[in-house]
Amino acid sequence: MLKIKALLFDVFGTVVDWRTGVAGEVKKIANKYGITIDSYAFADAWRAEYQPSMEKIRMGNRSFTILDILHEENLKKIASQYNLDQISKEDFEHLVTCWHRLPGWPDSSQGLNKLKKKFIIATQSNGNIALMVNMAKHSNLNWDVILGAEVTGHYKPEPEAYLKACGALNLKTQECLMVAAHEDDLAAASKQGMKTAFVYRPLEFGEEKRFNNTDVNDKKNWDFTATDFHDLAKQLGC
Amino acid sequence: MLKIKALLFDVFGTVVDWRTGVAGEVKKIANKYGITIDSYAFADAWRAEYQPSMEKIRMGNRSFTILDILHEENLKKIASQYNLDQISKEDFEHLVTCWHRLPGWPDSSQGLNKLKKKFIIATQSNGNIALMVNMAKHSNLNWDVILGAEVTGHYKPEPEAYLKACGALNLKTQECLMVAAHEDDLAAASKQGMKTAFVYRPLEFGEEKRFNNTDVNDKKNWDFTATDFHDLAKQLGC
Repeated sequence: MLKIKALLFDVFGTVVDWRTGVAGEVKKIANKYGITIDSYAFADAWRAEYQPSMEKIRMGNRSFTILDILHEENLKKIASQYNLDQISKEDFEHLVTCWHRLPGWPDSSQGLNKLKKKFIIATQSNGNIALMVNMAKHSNLNWDVILGAEVTGHYKPEPEAYLKACGALNLKTQECLMVAAHEDDLAAASKQGMKTAFVYRPLEFGEEKRFNNTDVNDKKNWDFTATDFHDLAKQLGC
Repeated sequence: MLKIKALLFDVFGTVVDWRTGVAGEVKKIANKYGITIDSYAFADAWRAEYQPSMEKIRMGNRSFTILDILHEENLKKIASQYNLDQISKEDFEHLVTCWHRLPGWPDSSQGLNKLKKKFIIATQSNGNIALMVNMAKHSNLNWDVILGAEVTGHYKPEPEAYLKACGALNLKTQECLMVAAHEDDLAAASKQGMKTAFVYRPLEFGEEKRFNNTDVNDKKNWDFTATDFHDLAKQLGC
């Protein structure tokens, strides 16, 4: 068994709490204009456009387009449903980039620092470079390298997204551990030979849709299953 | 005047001392085989192949090829002149990657940490991602993001190398400061609208070819001229 040299992280949901972050930012803007909004429903609606917008690119029906642009297009689609079509251009643009300012889960920053001492830690996200860099500065995520998106030119779960990210590090896929809170991401990474670590983020979709840990525990599909990044660090001998 | 938001660094010569690093590594291998070698002459000879090998790619006579491969080809060219054709495949491969283990100048690691508190700090090097990441881990260079090479798909001083690196950060070139110990690199960056900082690295080519600081001081061509990264940090208000 090859030694693990790099940890590649899914970011939205696994490292940062996008739902709380987006809801908090839209709430501030709504308050400014006196708009009544269900901020969590808005966050869910915006996020619901995420996969379909990438799917066109995955299918080859659109050339590779960065997530900042997809986020902008998707916000335009849903803005009127939430009475956000009345906000200024500046506020709209600020809202588009709220994904650059998402907060980490409580263990994310310190947990990554532990893991970084022993491994290369990399993003393997569909988020574009500027988004990842700004988020890292904002939420103290000390990545060694930003991979994914423009670096691979492919969106997960396309095989090339994983293969090219590992290739950019000049590592075999078996030397790279994909870390994610989503089973489909891990399954796709595993198909390419990557090792896999499932990290529980039970509140990604809110308390009402709390993730049932038992389901995953029973499957034992992954090389590692961790309650958070501190637990993962412990299991990996950091 | 737009505020500077990101610092993009040339790496070989500006951040790391390639000549001392390469000479030290080849000396160890030569000693192992009882080969007599002028290790600094070897480092200079290997480095002399660097620009010509990229030039074919810049001219469009060869598709984009990462520096690790060019380094390997260039080493093969000069190996026999230095009696290195007798070393094992493993030692040859280890020598090829000595560029992944180059030491920083004495101020590099701490100076970058100072600059990182106020700015995005990025590599803008012709070195490939794996090379830059491994070097960063080895010499404690805490980059926010690895740009250049595969990210832009162009070698400096091509305009696209600078434009695409700034573009990946979603910044205007005027918001990015190119930091280098080489005037041609800064001139090319400046042409694309980037701000420029010249950093003295008088011993890049050794004591015999010590860089004459006065020449550059007289020109005053750059937005900043610094004796090292601590000095640059001071001038930039870090």
